[in-house]
Amino acid sequence: MGTISEEILSAASGKKADAGDFVVARVDYAMSHDGTSVLAVKAFREMKSERVWDPSRIIIPFDHLAPANTENTALLQREIRQWAAEQGIKNLYDVGEGICHQLLPENGFAMPGKVIVGADSHSCTYGAFGAFATGVGATDMAEIYTSGKLWFRVPETIKLTVDGKLPAAVTPKDVILRIAKEVGSDGATYKAMEFYGPVIDHMSIAGRMTLCNMAIEMGGKAGIVPPDEKTFAFLKGRAVEEYRPVYASRDAVYCDELHLDVSKLHPQVSCPPDVDNVKDVGEVEGTHVDQVLIGSCTNGRYEDLAGAAAILKGRKVRCRTLIIPASRSVMLDAVQTGVAADLLAAGATICNPGCGPCLGGHMGVLAEGEACLATTNRNFRGRMGKGADVYLGSPLTAAATAINGKITDPRRYI
Amino acid sequence: MGTISEEILSAASGKKADAGDFVVARVDYAMSHDGTSVLAVKAFREMKSERVWDPSRIIIPFDHLAPANTENTALLQREIRQWAAEQGIKNLYDVGEGICHQLLPENGFAMPGKVIVGADSHSCTYGAFGAFATGVGATDMAEIYTSGKLWFRVPETIKLTVDGKLPAAVTPKDVILRIAKEVGSDGATYKAMEFYGPVIDHMSIAGRMTLCNMAIEMGGKAGIVPPDEKTFAFLKGRAVEEYRPVYASRDAVYCDELHLDVSKLHPQVSCPPDVDNVKDVGEVEGTHVDQVLIGSCTNGRYEDLAGAAAILKGRKVRCRTLIIPASRSVMLDAVQTGVAADLLAAGATICNPGCGPCLGGHMGVLAEGEACLATTNRNFRGRMGKGADVYLGSPLTAAATAINGKITDPRRYI
Repeated sequence: MGTISEEILSAASGKKADAGDFVVARVDYAMSHDGTSVLAVKAFREMKSERVWDPSRIIIPFDHLAPANTENTALLQREIRQWAAEQGIKNLYDVGEGICHQLLPENGFAMPGKVIVGADSHSCTYGAFGAFATGVGATDMAEIYTSGKLWFRVPETIKLTVDGKLPAAVTPKDVILRIAKEVGSDGATYKAMEFYGPVIDHMSIAGRMTLCNMAIEMGGKAGIVPPDEKTFAFLKGRAVEEYRPVYASRDAVYCDELHLDVSKLHPQVSCPPDVDNVKDVGEVEGTHVDQVLIGSCTNGRYEDLAGAAAILKGRKVRCRTLIIPASRSVMLDAVQTGVAADLLAAGATICNPGCGPCLGGHMGVLAEGEACLATTNRNFRGRMGKGADVYLGSPLTAAATAINGKITDPRRYI
Repeated sequence: MGTISEEILSAASGKKADAGDFVVARVDYAMSHDGTSVLAVKAFREMKSERVWDPSRIIIPFDHLAPANTENTALLQREIRQWAAEQGIKNLYDVGEGICHQLLPENGFAMPGKVIVGADSHSCTYGAFGAFATGVGATDMAEIYTSGKLWFRVPETIKLTVDGKLPAAVTPKDVILRIAKEVGSDGATYKAMEFYGPVIDHMSIAGRMTLCNMAIEMGGKAGIVPPDEKTFAFLKGRAVEEYRPVYASRDAVYCDELHLDVSKLHPQVSCPPDVDNVKDVGEVEGTHVDQVLIGSCTNGRYEDLAGAAAILKGRKVRCRTLIIPASRSVMLDAVQTGVAADLLAAGATICNPGCGPCLGGHMGVLAEGEACLATTNRNFRGRMGKGADVYLGSPLTAAATAINGKITDPRRYI
């Protein structure tokens, strides 16, 4: 009898789990990517562990520096491949398959009621499917690899209700940026966030992933959308095993409740250097940018690319504009529907699926003093290049901005 | 009265230029890319030069590390942009437009009879259009930027005649690899190569670019195909100015003549560590590779991608397979014709246009001990990663190899 997190962690630990309790829970799926697997495998070996608890429940996507940017990256990726083969881990998604947080859902690992732990902070994305999903460090991941279990402090939960109806050119990204403004960049620290209300009900799966993805940007342990028919339809023929939808009980106790009516919401821009430094697009229109980036685990899905293409079609970009599909499947859809052609014809550059320059590792790193409008999730100084600024916005705001090389209200183009 | 090189350099220097003479010739077009522009601009400033001789005749594509792989690359690219803007150089092709040696032809700068000099060794590619085109170092480029002229030692010329008819699945790349085997990696040092014969007459523009591109791999100063109706058709509506086709006179003197009948040629593979270590594919079939790369200024054009897609369609790759279109235009064609979809569905990774990992800088660098079958032009040890091997082959051989993760005769799939 509790929040979704309490319900899931109770089932996974075999005891009633209330907010604040420490429990040891069974983990259904564990994910580490090319960046963190190296550390997790090192810790696994230091623990003298020999075999992983269940190779079918471990997923390893290569996305952070893919294709390899240096010899050293290539060497580390080879070591992970070798370790995965030794351990019988078949769910290794190599260079070019896409971003971990897109691949787990696409391949049916993100399911209601499951406990999913990733060695990446944005693992909360899987909460869009009603899972309890969270990020951990590499040593915790080594413990999961070994035992299939991990300790958790059961989080308190904030209940967010999003009312009204989204105006034209205002997207789930704008909603979550506005929530970040309200909650603050540490306002949900170690708390779960549950999303309710008609806007969430009407929101696409991709949009829900955008919301849950950014829970961590407020310090959140998890972001969860209660599963519904859309969730079940997405998982049909895709879920890798049976699942049981879990909902909060009527008498669930929330530590906080937030209501947001989005009917008059403007497109939002999160300005450097903090995610909660959020403004209506009109307040920052005209700000020069050197680069636009549309992609990432936050906004690299088909509907994101299609939305950008609808604005860019027949127009020309005026600054470096990188489009990074979240997965091979997204890229293929964009190619087959004409979206990719529209983007290319507008002068955008389509890169291979992966994380791209989001974390400043390669493929579009900024110079000192440059600025980027990105659909990504973090804008602290240096994230995408030392001394460079990152503004966060929706794919529509990004597309409009690309046309002018200045932050632009996307409603000018619809 | 001479070879094509002698004729062009005579016209460009205003005096009769015979092989062995030193002449100062007018340069029609000068190219430097993101890698070499930095050095050329530095030398230009050290020479106390203030204005370039003619900004409309300078072309600067960003291809070597695009999008920028590090902050430093981004800074250097910004400096080049600023310098180009100061100098009024409008032909700057920024991140995502493609490889210099593809962009100059596509945009009508590569024309018969012209002298084209690039600060990149594969600038000989433009000889496919009947130009005298060659690569120089950055200080020579600074001199051209300043004066529009450069000294040349007029090269001797080898006349190559390619007879017969290419068998199925044997391509221009196989022809030039076979020529490299015959001539040797230093056999054409400081010489021009002129290509004649029915195979050249029937060869596409793309194929001729592949041939001329690799002249430098034999030490060649230039590789030249006499212009014909195909050349003129390609340039129609594209040439940026008038041009005059130049041919060798009947009494032209060649330092060497080579005849090659390709009617029984097998697909060729150049094995590490030298370009002239060329074998019939059958001799190396089964050699393990970790990566396949289809792209580069040698073989990243539409017909290369389409050829690979014809083999990969409905099949699956078994190793990392990178497809790097030579330009935005090539990528758009591949997207619009279904070629990109076939490649993606087969499991290949399509990266943004540019040089990719060809020179070991980013986007698919190999680990020590790994091997790559690439459609590129150089296979010395370390080219694509320290201690890694590169095998050179055609796009068809690359596609067949990708299916098996081992070097494979493409004739098995046609």
